[in-house]
Amino acid sequence: MKKAVCINEIGPRDGFQNVGEFIPTGVKLKIIDGVIASGIKRVQLTSFVSPKAIPQMRDAAEIAQACLNQYPDVSFYALVPNLRGAENAAKCGLKEVSAVISVSESHNLANVRKTLDESFAQLGEMVSAFPDIHIILDAAMAFGCPDEGVTPYGRLKAYMERARELGIDASTVCDSIGVAHPNQVREYFTRLRGDFPEMTFRAHIHDTRNMGMVNTLTAVECGITDVEVAVGGLGGCPFAAGATGNTSTEDFAYMLHELGYETGICFDKLLETAKYAKEHVRGNFSGHHINITRSCRVQ
Amino acid sequence: MKKAVCINEIGPRDGFQNVGEFIPTGVKLKIIDGVIASGIKRVQLTSFVSPKAIPQMRDAAEIAQACLNQYPDVSFYALVPNLRGAENAAKCGLKEVSAVISVSESHNLANVRKTLDESFAQLGEMVSAFPDIHIILDAAMAFGCPDEGVTPYGRLKAYMERARELGIDASTVCDSIGVAHPNQVREYFTRLRGDFPEMTFRAHIHDTRNMGMVNTLTAVECGITDVEVAVGGLGGCPFAAGATGNTSTEDFAYMLHELGYETGICFDKLLETAKYAKEHVRGNFSGHHINITRSCRVQ
Repeated sequence: MKKAVCINEIGPRDGFQNVGEFIPTGVKLKIIDGVIASGIKRVQLTSFVSPKAIPQMRDAAEIAQACLNQYPDVSFYALVPNLRGAENAAKCGLKEVSAVISVSESHNLANVRKTLDESFAQLGEMVSAFPDIHIILDAAMAFGCPDEGVTPYGRLKAYMERARELGIDASTVCDSIGVAHPNQVREYFTRLRGDFPEMTFRAHIHDTRNMGMVNTLTAVECGITDVEVAVGGLGGCPFAAGATGNTSTEDFAYMLHELGYETGICFDKLLETAKYAKEHVRGNFSGHHINITRSCRVQ
Repeated sequence: MKKAVCINEIGPRDGFQNVGEFIPTGVKLKIIDGVIASGIKRVQLTSFVSPKAIPQMRDAAEIAQACLNQYPDVSFYALVPNLRGAENAAKCGLKEVSAVISVSESHNLANVRKTLDESFAQLGEMVSAFPDIHIILDAAMAFGCPDEGVTPYGRLKAYMERARELGIDASTVCDSIGVAHPNQVREYFTRLRGDFPEMTFRAHIHDTRNMGMVNTLTAVECGITDVEVAVGGLGGCPFAAGATGNTSTEDFAYMLHELGYETGICFDKLLETAKYAKEHVRGNFSGHHINITRSCRVQ
């Protein structure tokens, strides 16, 4: 029996967000259609943020509505920075959202101008206001922070305890700046699963220091079955100009298949979509398969 | 006690070889000087091939002589395709060479127009003719071949048996086309070490499919202490246009340091050299650190 891994495609949010030039909504929808056609069953579609803050996400409602109508069998979620974002996501009919709070107080202050107390208070309000929406808590800077350095596990544990008290049952553990290494990934996920057996955890690992593949695989080896990756390896990092973004969906899927994991994904269709994305989106695509123009493929 | 890994810098051979425009000898020497200044103790300097076949390597003798004179404490080796290459390397004073034979018969025929019998016969002559030179056997296509598909372990074992009969005591196991996956790397190195306890093995893994970091790390975890990597991730693959080349030396060293391995390398100096190389060599640099132009570094 092959072990199953659920690949969560987040390129339409974390990838597109790093692209300066507005990507036509039709191109976005075509990329989303391609990843779904390749077999992906969970997609982070967009971010319900202020269009002034991130103009790239100004078509959030249109994207969400189109996808919810067209693909009833796919799980969709979106990032929401606050109650208004959650409200807009709910209006579109989304049943799952990611709410972000940094594990690092100083980064949270810099990012959303809120203390952790204020952010968790807001999260509590969100939980109360939207009882029908599944709120995933994105634990940003779970491994390290540009301001505070390495995140001690104790800090992450205290953070998850606060989340659990609010009724949160799922969290995406984010290496937002790509600073984790495999031993840390193994330790933190193993301890989180032990300390919070009633919660589920997802992995979101940036590839800044070329450890995206090995760290995401390490999370899978620790029993994490939901991993966030971006088609074509599109993306970047606001804390490191020129940095590689998320791990590439197709490269990671290829490796999982080689290792005997089941993803339900057709690699060739996914690669075709990644190539379409690269042709139509002016961004930083760091996937490896995508850049091979002619290959003697070993079967 | 930290485990030690010997990083073998092969950018001056496998990296430069993939660059079309001739790299001035002075630039090559400056890059070699930089990697040595960063703490690297073993460098594959060049390839003693016909200048008609690979014009980039036409300064092989000059490079080898300069380095042997300047750095008495560093181990240098060069690739040699045949007896004449070995002779030229010996004339320069090199004490170690890599001789290449493919594990795949059809690739060996395509690459050097020799059957495996002919190549091993030539290797035997080389062993006899150069008793003072340490010959490392580069086992090309050890994991897979563009013509023959996955290399079964039995074929690799039979190949190593032939090598051992000729007195070869060290072999670089090469994923020449970047098609191995971590389970295969783990299996093959573990079995090789068990089947050939009197031989030492080195790892040479291409990053074609974004598994260079994880596969090279897997080799290290199997007890392989010599790994071949290329500064800046410079390189490519003759079997896949646009493909990523060798794993980046500085990215790999960074990960090893994070994991607690000892390499003797100063990462910052190495990165500086990689950046110098990227500025002065028109090639495909796939390292991640090298492409970060501004970074909030987490200490």
